[in-house]
Amino acid sequence: MAHAVIIGGGFAGINAAKRLGKSGKVSVTILDQRNHHLFQPLLYQVAMAGLDPSDIAVPIRALLRPYRRVRTLLGRAESFDLDRREVHFDGGVIPYDYLIVACGASHSYFGNDQWEAYAPGLKSVGQATEIRRRVLVAFEQAERASDPEEQARWMTFVIVGGGPTGVELAGAIAEMATFALSKDFRTINSADARVLLVQSGDRILKQFDADQAEYATQALRSLGVEVVLGSRVTNIGASGIEIGEQRIAAGTVLWAAGVQANRIGLQLDTPLDRAGRVKVQPDLTIPAHSNVFVVGDLAHTPGPDGNPLPGLAPVATQAGCYVADVIIDEVRAESAPDPARRKPFEYRDKGQMATIGRKRAIMQAGKRKKNGFLAWIVWLVVHIYFLSGFRNRFFVFLKWCWAYLTFSKGARLIVQKEWRQAESEMLSPVVGSLDETYRQDTRSPGPRFESLTRASQPSAD
Amino acid sequence: MAHAVIIGGGFAGINAAKRLGKSGKVSVTILDQRNHHLFQPLLYQVAMAGLDPSDIAVPIRALLRPYRRVRTLLGRAESFDLDRREVHFDGGVIPYDYLIVACGASHSYFGNDQWEAYAPGLKSVGQATEIRRRVLVAFEQAERASDPEEQARWMTFVIVGGGPTGVELAGAIAEMATFALSKDFRTINSADARVLLVQSGDRILKQFDADQAEYATQALRSLGVEVVLGSRVTNIGASGIEIGEQRIAAGTVLWAAGVQANRIGLQLDTPLDRAGRVKVQPDLTIPAHSNVFVVGDLAHTPGPDGNPLPGLAPVATQAGCYVADVIIDEVRAESAPDPARRKPFEYRDKGQMATIGRKRAIMQAGKRKKNGFLAWIVWLVVHIYFLSGFRNRFFVFLKWCWAYLTFSKGARLIVQKEWRQAESEMLSPVVGSLDETYRQDTRSPGPRFESLTRASQPSAD
Repeated sequence: MAHAVIIGGGFAGINAAKRLGKSGKVSVTILDQRNHHLFQPLLYQVAMAGLDPSDIAVPIRALLRPYRRVRTLLGRAESFDLDRREVHFDGGVIPYDYLIVACGASHSYFGNDQWEAYAPGLKSVGQATEIRRRVLVAFEQAERASDPEEQARWMTFVIVGGGPTGVELAGAIAEMATFALSKDFRTINSADARVLLVQSGDRILKQFDADQAEYATQALRSLGVEVVLGSRVTNIGASGIEIGEQRIAAGTVLWAAGVQANRIGLQLDTPLDRAGRVKVQPDLTIPAHSNVFVVGDLAHTPGPDGNPLPGLAPVATQAGCYVADVIIDEVRAESAPDPARRKPFEYRDKGQMATIGRKRAIMQAGKRKKNGFLAWIVWLVVHIYFLSGFRNRFFVFLKWCWAYLTFSKGARLIVQKEWRQAESEMLSPVVGSLDETYRQDTRSPGPRFESLTRASQPSAD
Repeated sequence: MAHAVIIGGGFAGINAAKRLGKSGKVSVTILDQRNHHLFQPLLYQVAMAGLDPSDIAVPIRALLRPYRRVRTLLGRAESFDLDRREVHFDGGVIPYDYLIVACGASHSYFGNDQWEAYAPGLKSVGQATEIRRRVLVAFEQAERASDPEEQARWMTFVIVGGGPTGVELAGAIAEMATFALSKDFRTINSADARVLLVQSGDRILKQFDADQAEYATQALRSLGVEVVLGSRVTNIGASGIEIGEQRIAAGTVLWAAGVQANRIGLQLDTPLDRAGRVKVQPDLTIPAHSNVFVVGDLAHTPGPDGNPLPGLAPVATQAGCYVADVIIDEVRAESAPDPARRKPFEYRDKGQMATIGRKRAIMQAGKRKKNGFLAWIVWLVVHIYFLSGFRNRFFVFLKWCWAYLTFSKGARLIVQKEWRQAESEMLSPVVGSLDETYRQDTRSPGPRFESLTRASQPSAD
């Protein structure tokens, strides 16, 4: 029986695995360095303490449980032997008849990887919880701070990059500060938080039409977000960012700018584009290897207009299903992999959406556009619908109803730090982490704090 | 207005803060190095992937939001100046009129602190998610392993310590292996997992009567747990444990044995007991400082029978409320702190419970005892009832219904590792973590894996 190996359990990999598994005609091994499939479109809600990781992440094993001929392995692919048809990973070697590479993409810091320590991106659950920790800790630090300048720095949040993720993060932080946290602090007024969305281009949301982007910009501004256009960040450090000569002191900087395909693409020695994506043929294979498919954000797939298809869940999902069908057909026909027999991949554009805060969104599919509250309702329904695994759908829906009615954020926990402390001998502190900021803090003289304490004593009034 | 400083947001601290806040007669500053109050009794369910951290942890700020004269600070207390009535913490100095120290306890490794890296305890959310990660990774490693011996090691789980936590962990792992994971793996049969509960004494659950402990032992054995009595662990390493001459190879070792009070107690220069707990007077103060109270697991509080009161939530809660009342009385009476006027603290025994798996529990209050399914129902109701914060109660109840009906575990995510990789330059790998075990793995020759792959190809049958 033919054996297909899938690298990556994202939208492309999972959907290919499911379809191949259903067919029963192919045995499958799916390899991922993480044990869970992640519903990326809602990841920003985990970062913003609205959802728990387990609401939007499901163990790959659990998703593929029904398919007895699909095997899940936790491990990291390292290289390929395309002639011997083998995948080399950190646990050994796996031979394949068909190979599907779907390792996705991560953020690009445009050659300034040192910025990542100060401005984490949002691609994994681990990064989401780290961002949550930093945002919540920033408010805590502001509450502690007595020096107004330091306080202002902690109350400033910079999001770099005006794509959907940046827009969603900026809107969510502004709303959290205004609503969820408003009654929680005594020294600061969380609603005074400054949220900047910095975009190098002359407008945000380039993926959308200008009028939609304009609507989103106004919506963000109405939430108090400062949308800074035409500004390229030239440096990021522990104390904030630089835009050319201009310095902006910020306690929290988040990165939502460039995208860089997974470096595994280099192992396929075939042409890549500037973002490191593998240039694939109409049947999503690489030249000279008709049994090796590359799909999802890792692939540079030419669209109808010649531009590559965007890195969206629907694109990855459709590509994964397409590849599975191609393989099943060939296995059924007992024919060898043959590009000539395959009809090319065609993407059916389902459109795209972005949400701004808790009751506005924009959507656009071809010529059809929508924005405002109705679009937000559609956004809600669509995301609940596509969320994998019924339990998650169920609980996410309940949590959203709850959050909408109460304005509260359920998951406002600062965890990472804790465990770091527990094993402080084993882990070196992370730059820009709380430990770090504490150290900055203790440099300032102790007594200064008394004033704050007095201020807090209502006996003063 | 009198100012009370509370160190620690556990059951004792939170309840003292709430009551003082309600009175409006005292301004309060509560200091904790974590931003959340943790419902410890259910922490093992987070470790066992049944609940999410945010189900049992609530931000201290959110809990105290209603009380305008209560201020929450994130920070770590470092020392006290009892004469100048000041708390020194990592952010400065806080003066107080009344001081309530409630920093709790952590695990004691009986002088073998190096064991912690191989056998984490279960006291914080960070530790719970780390334990979850290790248990889930162990099954993944077993699935990957081709060497039967290595596989057996990964399938062996040792819990050290036969108290309620040890019993609850052992029962939960055994059930997870038998039910939740049973259909998820292809190479291993998760139900073959070996779960050992190692206890140095001649029986488990010393806090309970012998017959109750006997019932629990039988219940554990019926779940497949090997209860090993009269065995003191003499060494713990990456590959397992030693009991005298006997070595037990285990991929996962969890620590639920000794308890060690928070070291902050040393800063009060007053007598401590062997567990490092502060010996308090009948009014829960320390000698010569009638405005300094020590409550909760940090305190050695003499009970009616002369033995110290156990480290239970009800004890901490009642002590916190008692201290708040004492302070409020004195403030109302405008009298200076005066031990003579105070009636001593009296603990009203609410009894204690432990649960074994998903439908059995034991409970005991004085002479009254119960066990079996009915006790489990009571356990369920009591824990839901006392869970702080309505949202949590609501969602935990739903998740339990769900889990009970489906046998599924919702939160089976391996996260920590991920983020470690993302910042691998910044964090050194943790001994015994996945990174480590991977390295062990890659030492073995790659090709050996092929056999496993073939085995997985149904074409073989």
